[in-house]
Order: sequence, then structure tokens, then C-alpha cells
Amino acid sequence: MGTLGKHYLLDLKDCSKSRLDDMDFIKEVLSDVAKEAGTAVLGESFHQFLPQGLSGVVLITGAHLCIHTWPEYGYAAIDIFTHGDSFRADEASRLIIEKLESKNPAIVELKRGF
Amino acid sequence: MGTLGKHYLLDLKDCSKSRLDDMDFIKEVLSDVAKEAGTAVLGESFHQFLPQGLSGVVLITGAHLCIHTWPEYGYAAIDIFTHGDSFRADEASRLIIEKLESKNPAIVELKRGF
Repeated sequence: MGTLGKHYLLDLKDCSKSRLDDMDFIKEVLSDVAKEAGTAVLGESFHQFLPQGLSGVVLITGAHLCIHTWPEYGYAAIDIFTHGDSFRADEASRLIIEKLESKNPAIVELKRGF
Repeated sequence: MGTLGKHYLLDLKDCSKSRLDDMDFIKEVLSDVAKEAGTAVLGESFHQFLPQGLSGVVLITGAHLCIHTWPEYGYAAIDIFTHGDSFRADEASRLIIEKLESKNPAIVELKRGF
């Protein structure tokens, strides 16, 4: 048994504020992440808050991605869960940080399972 | 600024193996959790693996729930992210542990933000 999944928690500070509030852009980023990893999006759900901020969850083959943004603080909380080898979370993290233009990203990697 | 969200990671061992592989049951549990918290499900996506196991992501007002199950090990990895006060993650955790009949649950609570 041992490790069954890996969970990456990304706290992204000093992001592009406009990008954090752009639903179409965020959806495209997460879709690109899945494509680059060579995996399929199985389903997704997003919600735009007023006056600002959005949340989204994406189920991917062998992984999930979740995002919650606070444009007013330039901050996004993201988590990436992977099981199996089909989804490369390190590459996904790099791409998300780049696209959101975070100048102050922090990543914590946790093992899930036993 | 400070804490913007709270993230609960649940590693549930010694669960009911049949319940971990029952898609309808898992959907109902997560729906019940949202209802008991008095919040609305904004969207959800689930996937059943063969020969066993399932994954699901649920977007809720002020929160998300994700679950990945390994019936063969009686194990489920769950995470609950909350922002705002509308969703009580401690109560949600208690309900999920009870419904999955986990005899060996572990919960880690992490603050997200600055």
C-alpha cells in the first residue's frame, strides 16, 4: 500500500489580478494543463463571485485540480491531487504559476495514503 | 488579509469497502453534507474506475469537496476547502467519516492564504 496519491497545495501570491478574475482565462489554463499532461478532462464546475473572485473544480483522468481566487489580494489557492502516473503535477504546477504570473508562489507536496 | 481559506485533508482508513465503491451512495453522502451545512451544490463531476474505485469533485457555495476511493484498501482521500463562514468543515468531516464507517480517520487542518 503506502502512498496512493500525491497532493500539491499551491499558495500563489502576487499574481496578475486581472487574470485571477477572468473565468475564460482560468478555464483555458486548467484545460491546457490537462492537455499538456496528455490526460482528459472528465468534468468541471466553475463559479464566478461578485464583485470578484472565482472558484473551480476539474476532474481529470488520474487527478483533480481545484482553484479559488482572490483578485483583490492577487492570491490564488490551488490544489492538485494525483494518483497513478498519468498526470505530472510538477509540470502542471509550473504551468499554472507561469500563466497566473505569480511572483511569489509556494508549493507544499503531501503524500496521501498510508 | 491573513487566512483566506481553510483546507481539511481527511485520510480515512478502515472504511466500508462496499460503500467506497458505490457511486450513488457517495454522491448522496456529499449532497447530504452540503444540505446539512445549509449550502448549495453549484456543480459536480464523478468518475467510476474499473474494476473499482471512484473519484469525485463537488463545488459548493463557499467550499469544495473532493474524494478519491480505493475500496481494495478500505481507504478514501478526501479534501474539504472552505472560505467564508457558510460551510462548517468540522461537521462535514464528522458526517463523512460516519457515513463511510471509517474506523481509523485522520484529519489535517491547514490554513490557506498569507
